[in-house]
Amino acid sequence: MSFAGRTILASSIAKTFNEEIIAKVKTLVASNPTHRKPLLVGFLANEDPAAESYAKWTQTTCESYGIDYELRRVANKDYLEESIFDANRDDAVDGIMIYFPVFGNAQDQYLQQVVAKEKDVEGLNHVYYQNMYHNVRYLDPATKLQKSILPCTPLAIIKILEYLKVYNTLLPQGNRLYGKTAVVLNRSEIVGRPLAALMANDGATVYSVDINNIQKFTRGQGLKFSKHQVQDLGDNTSELLKEICQDADVIITGVPVANYKFPTEYIKEGAVCINFSFHKNFNDDVKGKASLYVPSTGKVTISMLLRNMLRLIDNTNAAKGITSSSSVEGKVAAMDISKQA
Amino acid sequence: MSFAGRTILASSIAKTFNEEIIAKVKTLVASNPTHRKPLLVGFLANEDPAAESYAKWTQTTCESYGIDYELRRVANKDYLEESIFDANRDDAVDGIMIYFPVFGNAQDQYLQQVVAKEKDVEGLNHVYYQNMYHNVRYLDPATKLQKSILPCTPLAIIKILEYLKVYNTLLPQGNRLYGKTAVVLNRSEIVGRPLAALMANDGATVYSVDINNIQKFTRGQGLKFSKHQVQDLGDNTSELLKEICQDADVIITGVPVANYKFPTEYIKEGAVCINFSFHKNFNDDVKGKASLYVPSTGKVTISMLLRNMLRLIDNTNAAKGITSSSSVEGKVAAMDISKQA
Repeated sequence: MSFAGRTILASSIAKTFNEEIIAKVKTLVASNPTHRKPLLVGFLANEDPAAESYAKWTQTTCESYGIDYELRRVANKDYLEESIFDANRDDAVDGIMIYFPVFGNAQDQYLQQVVAKEKDVEGLNHVYYQNMYHNVRYLDPATKLQKSILPCTPLAIIKILEYLKVYNTLLPQGNRLYGKTAVVLNRSEIVGRPLAALMANDGATVYSVDINNIQKFTRGQGLKFSKHQVQDLGDNTSELLKEICQDADVIITGVPVANYKFPTEYIKEGAVCINFSFHKNFNDDVKGKASLYVPSTGKVTISMLLRNMLRLIDNTNAAKGITSSSSVEGKVAAMDISKQA
Repeated sequence: MSFAGRTILASSIAKTFNEEIIAKVKTLVASNPTHRKPLLVGFLANEDPAAESYAKWTQTTCESYGIDYELRRVANKDYLEESIFDANRDDAVDGIMIYFPVFGNAQDQYLQQVVAKEKDVEGLNHVYYQNMYHNVRYLDPATKLQKSILPCTPLAIIKILEYLKVYNTLLPQGNRLYGKTAVVLNRSEIVGRPLAALMANDGATVYSVDINNIQKFTRGQGLKFSKHQVQDLGDNTSELLKEICQDADVIITGVPVANYKFPTEYIKEGAVCINFSFHKNFNDDVKGKASLYVPSTGKVTISMLLRNMLRLIDNTNAAKGITSSSSVEGKVAAMDISKQA
């Protein structure tokens, strides 16, 4: 059986960020008086094997980038908050992440906000979310010195869509998904809703599907609105799902259910299919339907998490009035400096 | 059948705050150059009859206090965020509340954080929660001009416990529940967990019960810790529930299930029983067991909500450097001023 499409692994996509991140880390180490490496601290307070392996990946990726990583295991969940406070206060810690779920309820949302905004590499702080939904790019819109970061999983999927050339660079930035239709199966606050919003803000028509209903995110005809609007289409039924998939250029799945499989027959010939669920949401025969298929996204997410950390360090330096000459524009200059170090 | 105990209605308890709130409102109106009344805006974006009747109560209570109330109905939930932004920006709006649930998922937690901290009468902003859990009383601990408010439902229950004399005023403030044992059935982030934390911070031994398990919140033997610690006791079984209720002086229910009834036989003779669920969680025969029984708490919650609003106005004035001589200590002076107005 020969297929027309290709499977693209997240690891290949993640590699495209290596050069940028490694150069940036070198600059930071060189510009720091003590030459210490940036430090990311991960908090693990569950016994989820998925979290364990995610933590291991994070460690490996950090090391490959010249970043220090420390896994802090918290046996009693109820002490996690105090441990986060310690890391918030510790100048030696540059980034903090938590392997969720911890409590598996709204207390997890509380914990997300406990991480200091300045060290929140996952981009879960309310300030980052609100800025994202409203297309606000800076924490300080007047002076534009501190970038508002994006939540790392939705950001990773955007970067994957760029890599897959779903974003058309002939269109002006901010409208590069104009004309594209996407279906996102998941409307969590962590991934699905922000992803649908980001894609719609970039010009796509996005159908957001959760267990209850289906919504349409769009900037209106001819992209008349500057940010996305949301419209309820009705209950999540097979008929409606099939209908919206008919013309979908992109199908993105994030269904957190072990045996869930997206019906291959709903996929348009040559569509781009991306799965970000821990479980494989597509059947193997997706390869016979999709032009490009990305079976998982975790490795790109980790790269984005570390990219966020470097931006946070820049923000902190900007707040202190230190220029690290480490913006994307300054990358070449930065690499020169790092060679001298 | 004659019972030894008494049923106490929330309306009677709420009345005890009338004088304080009315006097304070008069002072504010008098000290304001335009003499306008404080304005609370409620956002209703669901069709829940409970929310409707809560909104009506809020209106009636506001009017009885000389506060303006405006109910803003938002037909499309997806426009609610924009409407909140409008109210955040509007200087004529002093307080904002949302009738939850709106989406019934994590997007509701997002919306909670959209309300400006300065107008968040429900006390749901993360800053207020984090301060509450850590017993931080001021937003500006150095200057102590701006009080950190408490989430209004847990605060209402604390005020009810004070009214019922469960708080012993012979003990120093901060330890007034020392020696008391309480069971709280609900561990939501909105009520149950903050309530257990507040009570344990005040010296009680609190058993926090949710659908999965039972935890113990305490400051340790002889109140050796300055804030509560949490210990897992195990799964929520009838045996364990019965055991912890055996010596409980206070049983507080908030089970959001229509047909749930707390087993009357678990209640210690003469215990204090309080229900904050919309549904009556106690059987009628609770009256034969409890010394004091409070069947609902909503009316006290509304008083606390308005008390919070007045504190927020004070905070805003303090931030602007305006003294309104309206602290609790300044109440008598304030009443004098209001008479002149």
